Amino acid sequence: ARPRVGYFYAGKSANQLLGEHVRKLMVKDYKSLPIVVKEETSAYDAICTMFLEDVGTLFVVKENKQLAGVVSRKDLLKTAMGKQDLQTIPVSIVMTRMPNIVTCSPDDSLLDAAAKLMRYQVDALPVVRPMEDGDGVEVIGRITKTTITKAFVELGQHTDV
Amino acid sequence: ARPRVGYFYAGKSANQLLGEHVRKLMVKDYKSLPIVVKEETSAYDAICTMFLEDVGTLFVVKENKQLAGVVSRKDLLKTAMGKQDLQTIPVSIVMTRMPNIVTCSPDDSLLDAAAKLMRYQVDALPVVRPMEDGDGVEVIGRITKTTITKAFVELGQHTDV
Repeated sequence: ARPRVGYFYAGKSANQLLGEHVRKLMVKDYKSLPIVVKEETSAYDAICTMFLEDVGTLFVVKENKQLAGVVSRKDLLKTAMGKQDLQTIPVSIVMTRMPNIVTCSPDDSLLDAAAKLMRYQVDALPVVRPMEDGDGVEVIGRITKTTITKAFVELGQHTDV
Repeated sequence: ARPRVGYFYAGKSANQLLGEHVRKLMVKDYKSLPIVVKEETSAYDAICTMFLEDVGTLFVVKENKQLAGVVSRKDLLKTAMGKQDLQTIPVSIVMTRMPNIVTCSPDDSLLDAAAKLMRYQVDALPVVRPMEDGDGVEVIGRITKTTITKAFVELGQHTDV
């Protein structure tokens, strides 16, 4: 059938083109630098790092850079509400641990990462790859709701080819 | 000139269609419910409300519902780091006050709201309208980076007309 003017092209609707374009955006092209701390870092120092680096999520890594956990502003606020001394509590006590961490890969689509942020109700995903030697994964980036908001703004600013 | 197959249609590129589509999304169709507290609410109770409602930003309102301030998880984490008793500090001390609050209107585009979230580096915008009687604005909703992430996921899921 002949395409309807202004709507179909080559059998594809504007919405199809839109979806296809969005699905082509890749995690590796949008990820930002991960901010990491060690397992023995105190909750106090973790909060300071969060403010200094202006991020809402820190990744906790072992000596060999293997991902051990994720700690959010929410986790630290909960800890700060308690009666304990923030200087003596290590982040390893309050973090979410592997294997309960939702991660993404540099070769995932940004759409899949955004869908994970929504489904698992987290603010950030570590971008990971398998460790070169041994078990576990290494953190090489981060994708947050800020990353997605930035990508959304870019989509809306498209006006030419 | 004759359109190139698979790319141009009716003089518009896929990118142009995409930009146009994104710019048509409106704040009023995406806003979620605002979670509000009063100026005399303690920092402690504000943190509890944040956890109970599972939000990262609270709006502080006066008796007549006029917007007085905005308080974020970050503001409260900073307060919790201090030596003061969270039960005796009112949120009005730690909040960002009018007129320093970045707001949006229900008739703004979601794109403009997303661009404000990025430009002013905030996690949430109150959706406001002028007070019916008197000065100031009334809060009628909220737009956050979660709202934008949800809209982004919807864009990527477009597959048909």
